[in-house]
Amino acid sequence: MVNNQLLNPKSIAIIGASNDTRKPGGNMLKNILAGGFAGNLYAVNPKEERVQGIKSFSEVMEIPQTDLAILAIPAKYCPETVKILAEEKNTKAFIIISAGFGEAGEQGKQWEQQIVSTVNSVDGCLIGPNCIGVITENYKGVFTAPVPQFNPKGCDLISGSGATAVFIMEAGMALGVSFANVFSVGNAAQTGVEDILEYMDENFDAEKDPFIKLLYLETISNPQKLLKHSSSLIKKGAKIAAIKAGSTAEGSRAATSHTGAIASSDMTVRALFHKAGIVYCSSREELLSVASIFNYKKLEGKNIAIITHAGGSAVMLADELSKGGLKVPEISGPDAEKLKTFLYPGSSVANPIDFLATGTAEQLGIIIDYCEHKFDNIDAMAVVFGSPGLFDVENVYNVLSVKLEICNKPIFPVLPSVINAQREIQSFLKKGHINFPDEVVLGKALSQVFNTPEPVSEAISLPKIDIEKIRGVINTASEGYLDAAQTQKLLDAAGIPRVTELVENSKEKMLAAMDSLEFPVVMKVVGPLHKSDAKGVVLNITSKEEVSETFDRLMQIDSATAVMVQPQLAGLELFVGVMKEPGFNHTILCGLGGIFIEVLNDVSAGLSPISNNEAQQMVQSLRGYKLIQGARGREGVNENQFVEIIQRLSALVEAAPEITEMDINPLIGTRKNIVAVDARVRVGH
Amino acid sequence: MVNNQLLNPKSIAIIGASNDTRKPGGNMLKNILAGGFAGNLYAVNPKEERVQGIKSFSEVMEIPQTDLAILAIPAKYCPETVKILAEEKNTKAFIIISAGFGEAGEQGKQWEQQIVSTVNSVDGCLIGPNCIGVITENYKGVFTAPVPQFNPKGCDLISGSGATAVFIMEAGMALGVSFANVFSVGNAAQTGVEDILEYMDENFDAEKDPFIKLLYLETISNPQKLLKHSSSLIKKGAKIAAIKAGSTAEGSRAATSHTGAIASSDMTVRALFHKAGIVYCSSREELLSVASIFNYKKLEGKNIAIITHAGGSAVMLADELSKGGLKVPEISGPDAEKLKTFLYPGSSVANPIDFLATGTAEQLGIIIDYCEHKFDNIDAMAVVFGSPGLFDVENVYNVLSVKLEICNKPIFPVLPSVINAQREIQSFLKKGHINFPDEVVLGKALSQVFNTPEPVSEAISLPKIDIEKIRGVINTASEGYLDAAQTQKLLDAAGIPRVTELVENSKEKMLAAMDSLEFPVVMKVVGPLHKSDAKGVVLNITSKEEVSETFDRLMQIDSATAVMVQPQLAGLELFVGVMKEPGFNHTILCGLGGIFIEVLNDVSAGLSPISNNEAQQMVQSLRGYKLIQGARGREGVNENQFVEIIQRLSALVEAAPEITEMDINPLIGTRKNIVAVDARVRVGH
Repeated sequence: MVNNQLLNPKSIAIIGASNDTRKPGGNMLKNILAGGFAGNLYAVNPKEERVQGIKSFSEVMEIPQTDLAILAIPAKYCPETVKILAEEKNTKAFIIISAGFGEAGEQGKQWEQQIVSTVNSVDGCLIGPNCIGVITENYKGVFTAPVPQFNPKGCDLISGSGATAVFIMEAGMALGVSFANVFSVGNAAQTGVEDILEYMDENFDAEKDPFIKLLYLETISNPQKLLKHSSSLIKKGAKIAAIKAGSTAEGSRAATSHTGAIASSDMTVRALFHKAGIVYCSSREELLSVASIFNYKKLEGKNIAIITHAGGSAVMLADELSKGGLKVPEISGPDAEKLKTFLYPGSSVANPIDFLATGTAEQLGIIIDYCEHKFDNIDAMAVVFGSPGLFDVENVYNVLSVKLEICNKPIFPVLPSVINAQREIQSFLKKGHINFPDEVVLGKALSQVFNTPEPVSEAISLPKIDIEKIRGVINTASEGYLDAAQTQKLLDAAGIPRVTELVENSKEKMLAAMDSLEFPVVMKVVGPLHKSDAKGVVLNITSKEEVSETFDRLMQIDSATAVMVQPQLAGLELFVGVMKEPGFNHTILCGLGGIFIEVLNDVSAGLSPISNNEAQQMVQSLRGYKLIQGARGREGVNENQFVEIIQRLSALVEAAPEITEMDINPLIGTRKNIVAVDARVRVGH
Repeated sequence: MVNNQLLNPKSIAIIGASNDTRKPGGNMLKNILAGGFAGNLYAVNPKEERVQGIKSFSEVMEIPQTDLAILAIPAKYCPETVKILAEEKNTKAFIIISAGFGEAGEQGKQWEQQIVSTVNSVDGCLIGPNCIGVITENYKGVFTAPVPQFNPKGCDLISGSGATAVFIMEAGMALGVSFANVFSVGNAAQTGVEDILEYMDENFDAEKDPFIKLLYLETISNPQKLLKHSSSLIKKGAKIAAIKAGSTAEGSRAATSHTGAIASSDMTVRALFHKAGIVYCSSREELLSVASIFNYKKLEGKNIAIITHAGGSAVMLADELSKGGLKVPEISGPDAEKLKTFLYPGSSVANPIDFLATGTAEQLGIIIDYCEHKFDNIDAMAVVFGSPGLFDVENVYNVLSVKLEICNKPIFPVLPSVINAQREIQSFLKKGHINFPDEVVLGKALSQVFNTPEPVSEAISLPKIDIEKIRGVINTASEGYLDAAQTQKLLDAAGIPRVTELVENSKEKMLAAMDSLEFPVVMKVVGPLHKSDAKGVVLNITSKEEVSETFDRLMQIDSATAVMVQPQLAGLELFVGVMKEPGFNHTILCGLGGIFIEVLNDVSAGLSPISNNEAQQMVQSLRGYKLIQGARGREGVNENQFVEIIQRLSALVEAAPEITEMDINPLIGTRKNIVAVDARVRVGH
């Protein structure tokens, strides 16, 4: 777990330090020396007297007490070395860059476990193994290049892949993105991305700490910790963007029900990010574009002014903003007319504000002043200004630079002339700004940021349900699918209304009981998993004679154990469900039933517990939402009740976390009422 | 229209040439001089004796006979200057870079028209006005920087925006993309993007001409010309990618029917690109990524091997390929085992082929050899190789460079270390290769290229229809919506089956006629445009009494003129429609009816005439296609007949191009049969 010795060590020992800077142990020392580490630095290398100018110890036993040890020696020597450091040298922080551990097989995994247990025994922190290291304000503990200058206003980067961290830094630095702390967690034997976020959250200092956090994740081993500390950091003012790679790899879990088949682990990850307020990214480019946006002032509304001297870029940017739900509103009125008088004839101020190829730096300044002070329907500006290669644009970029500092509305610079204006762009970046070389990439990232909601507030109040009754069912249930009676009890205890139904395996009893139901009814086979595939559902039954015939036919279906009869309800088919990814809270799903899930996969997901507001958003983000509202003469459904049922389902799985899978499909909804018609629950223990 | 004097002039006159290279006329001359133009060059500038070392004429009358004139003088002087050149100097090609023409107002438009008519009178070619100029193999006629070296294997660039052309060249050159001919058409007063493509097509020389064409379009003034010559060029082996900016701007056409409301001009543009085989792009970055893919060998299948020494990039690339419909198939078997013996322990060959951070150049060579020669389930390779900054990767990139030349399967290089390996990447690019700095951007572009179909073959055979009968209806119809009888005649003549129906405004007549129909029936009001909004559709009518009551109620609806009765059919609701964008052939639409178009906007579009294969693709690309096939116990529809109806609709509008809008909504389909239930046709003249 992260500690002060890792972040701000008074002494660092590099085990395996080398004079050869093409070796990790050599380049690590070089970077730490070049980074001007202020504490004591020890090298251990049995073959050298001095390494890169500092005294080399021939074995680890010889070095003085040391806060942080960085190991760049073969895996097999690491467990013993760590033991000596931990027990004899009071070392509390370890970075192991060596590979050959858990990722390499069983022996490596054992070494890893040994090391973790040693480190834990002294309450220490272990980063890695199999990582590129750590950069903090105090030292440059990575063996790779580039080593970005520490900028407290830059981005913290926490990465599950060392090479990817390097590639993110390289691509970022070329855009003008700067970095603060960098953590490469490697195999994350003891400390994962979540643990570092936890530390950052619990020790957050709004005066000093970097506000932007970029994450690269391949696995999320502790999703609830990620959720908790990401939300908390964002509520404190931080901004987090993350890549979760591996989104399309199929999970290994067998999908035996609808829910299993339609849900994917990517859906759960997105639900978590959504709840936490993390911006979901799919590439290094997206991550860095979002980071660039984070670097500017916060976008507080959706109305963007596009200021340009080149029409094409403005059109493409307007297209992209509009696709992403942002707006490029028309600008008109006396102020717009006044602005026009400062521009050359032929300029347009309607938005995009196009001040022509001949537009000047002064004009740009005036336009920005008008957008900042006069145009109330503008929340932010995107300024596209390149160079056709005829003249210097430094004066333009100087104006832009000043405006970036003094304006309250965010301004996003698109400087596309990466060749013609290379020098001027470099000088602009050196002032601490970031460039968006492609206007559409900017537009997309802007929408991603704008469309990511604030983190869900922690105080989520769920509807009251009968927990005792639920525990009664769950505690006595065996693993697998619950039977109809158990399922009904759960629904009743959770306060989810359900249709009256009779289940009988004797035709005589069923016919006798029919008097309690109104025709038409629907009859379903009990037993087979996919009833409609087996033609085990019969609609529109209007007489006892038909009930009798249908009963006989249904009982002949393979695995039929009984027949169920229900009143046939008219209304809109709805669906709610639950899935469970290991480590995550339950994912609650909702949708329209029937073809909407079976054909169109139109499903919303949220991570339990679901707030009322989240449940509303889930419902409203369905592609078929208009049907819930009622479209084109069709009756809609009671939306508040649907939202409530989603929350009740969430309350149910909070009370019964053993539920691994659940479908209520369909529910039938009208304007008045929604009732569950069929449900299936699976429990594990 | 493009001519030889434009492409390969023996002499060029620059009117408005200047010693000041910050002025367009100055920089134009500088670029032409620096580009080593081999013919005679004349400058016209009344204030100078010599301009940039060449003799300057004081007026245009004084210059010798000249093939090509480039005008960089104020707009108002251009018409007279062009007249003198055309009539006295035998000039047949003109490039006008000056602004202040059609884009600036009425006076400018007049000047533009005068110039066009002068140029046309001598059968000449006019590029511009308001453009950056032209680059061909023979001269560098642009006033902007950068001026890319002419590379016959590079990309032709034809742009409707000069600044965007500059920004595309700049961003492209930074990636290693090279350029051949560049045309900036400006206002396209005489020569547009389509005309240049026409010339390229009609004069295509497969031995010499560039194969890659990049287009930036803001308007498509002659869509059919664009379609014809793009398809033709692509069939000759060319590859075309294009941006059509302005995709979200709402067209000005009033949308008075369903079809109008759901279709957009972007849909029509996409249909055209799809039919032509043009790769649709939305940004400069996408255009250049696709151009980069075009630069490599053609992807002949969907199976990609990802070869990497860095896991993270491989995971993100695999995600993106999979989202785009491409595959990263497992590699296994004896050859895979053999390959593994050449790699370091811990490497994986299962695909991604991960040969670890320590992987060598030799190993990369062996892996590529295996993918090229041994693994038959691999169609292409993506090689991700960066540098953590420890050692030189030039030997790796040398191996890659050689393999790029000799392998038959395409290899796409992702070299992400834009800082650490800057020098090695530059040297790789100098060999004529292109780098993909971001793996996900590559993955997306690869899918875009792979998912763009071949151009539709020109010989489209449409079903035989009764053209005489159709012309009879159309020729006598007045502008606006056709009445029910006319509409039925058109459907019958086009061979589109329709439901039997009665239309009456007298209740007595309707009741009398009811004997010819079977109950249940559906009754609809005739008159109002949106029947279901007005509650003008009543289902499930089972008796004459109900017919009588319903008739009275429907006739009370606003604008009701009559009532229609039809047998109520059971089956899947389908939809076909037609829209017409100015200049384009008709766009034919198809979809599932009801909520699929009203709520989900699930519509496919194709440009008439629609081939059988295209119609099939349209149907199969619907999100709800599974319902047409029959899903989960529901009966599907006769897909062949649906395809035929789409083609019949296409044949109808080919015979009656005056149709500006048409819906058949719904059609009711079963496995056996599809019939039109309601239709609406609007004609213009």
